[in-house]
Amino acid sequence: MNGDALIQAASAIGAGLAMIAGIGAGIGQGFAAGKGAEAVGKQPEAQGVIVRTMLLGAAVAETTGIYGLVIALILLFANPFV
Amino acid sequence: MNGDALIQAASAIGAGLAMIAGIGAGIGQGFAAGKGAEAVGKQPEAQGVIVRTMLLGAAVAETTGIYGLVIALILLFANPFV
Amino acid sequence: MNGDALIQAASAIGAGLAMIAGIGAGIGQGFAAGKGAEAVGKQPEAQGVIVRTMLLGAAVAETTGIYGLVIALILLFANPFV
Amino acid sequence: MNGDALIQAASAIGAGLAMIAGIGAGIGQGFAAGKGAEAVGKQPEAQGVIVRTMLLGAAVAETTGIYGLVIALILLFANPFV
Amino acid sequence: MNGDALIQAASAIGAGLAMIAGIGAGIGQGFAAGKGAEAVGKQPEAQGVIVRTMLLGAAVAETTGIYGLVIALILLFANPFV
Repeated sequence: MNGDALIQAASAIGAGLAMIAGIGAGIGQGFAAGKGAEAVGKQPEAQGVIVRTMLLGAAVAETTGIYGLVIALILLFANPFV
Repeated sequence: MNGDALIQAASAIGAGLAMIAGIGAGIGQGFAAGKGAEAVGKQPEAQGVIVRTMLLGAAVAETTGIYGLVIALILLFANPFV
Repeated sequence: MNGDALIQAASAIGAGLAMIAGIGAGIGQGFAAGKGAEAVGKQPEAQGVIVRTMLLGAAVAETTGIYGLVIALILLFANPFV
Repeated sequence: MNGDALIQAASAIGAGLAMIAGIGAGIGQGFAAGKGAEAVGKQPEAQGVIVRTMLLGAAVAETTGIYGLVIALILLFANPFV
Repeated sequence: MNGDALIQAASAIGAGLAMIAGIGAGIGQGFAAGKGAEAVGKQPEAQGVIVRTMLLGAAVAETTGIYGLVIALILLFANPFV
């Protein structure tokens, strides 16, 4: 077994681990969706500002999920060790 | 043991780890579905906007689960190391 | 197998582990987004201060996700052991 | 393989593990941000004290995330075993 | 590979694992911060006692995070096995 194979094997595991970060965005954005739907039901006339606030906050929550994706892609396609 | 076997074995583990991200979308979208059903029960006349808001938010929450799926598929079918 | 390969392999796994920190920011910022959408629905005239408070708090919650990203990038591109 | 390589490899994994502590601060500070946005929406005239209390509490919640970062940095740059 | 290297390697991983305890304090203190901000918004004239109570509770919640930090520091700088 040579060293490159070990690094590539570990990178495949590391890429998988990095995606686990996505749990957070999924739960958080789902909570935002639920609260948004509830608020739109109560004040349909405020639908515009409610949905905009929900999507603005969801975009912020998406960031750490994207960080994980970026690290996974770096490990797979721009691995500095290989 | 040769190197390719190790990389393929680790990729199988990495693909499995990446799918753990799906926990988040499952919990979050379920919360959104619950709140949406609750809101439709209270304001049936607002069903249209409630369901649209719920589905819009759920679509956003789906993204990180899809990132995990993409990384898993890359590891399985477009593995850059093999 | 030489020592450098082992260190680089472990760094790839460590980088993936560090990204898991992002779960927190995702859940927390999503909660903030949901509460922000709810509050904007109830007091649309206070939209400005609500969104500013939400984003200020979300920025604070982002910090630990960024710490994880920084450690992952150090492990990949400025690894002190290699 | 010599002993130093093993220690450095384990330190890279340990640094990644230490960052997982950041999950807590992310969730907690996000909750504070959501409650802060909600409170500011209800009492905009009390915005000053609400935001100060939110940030004071968030600073306390940040501490354990910083402990994790400190241990990770010690493992990477001031490792007592290497 | 000698035994001391294995012990030190395992200690580095153990130090990282110990920091994961910080998740709890982060979530708990953030909840306290959110409820504190909410309470200060409702009774701004009681800000003093609210903040003192919040900080007292947060100090208690901090303890387990500090236990994790102490064990990590012992593993790194006062390791009884080396």
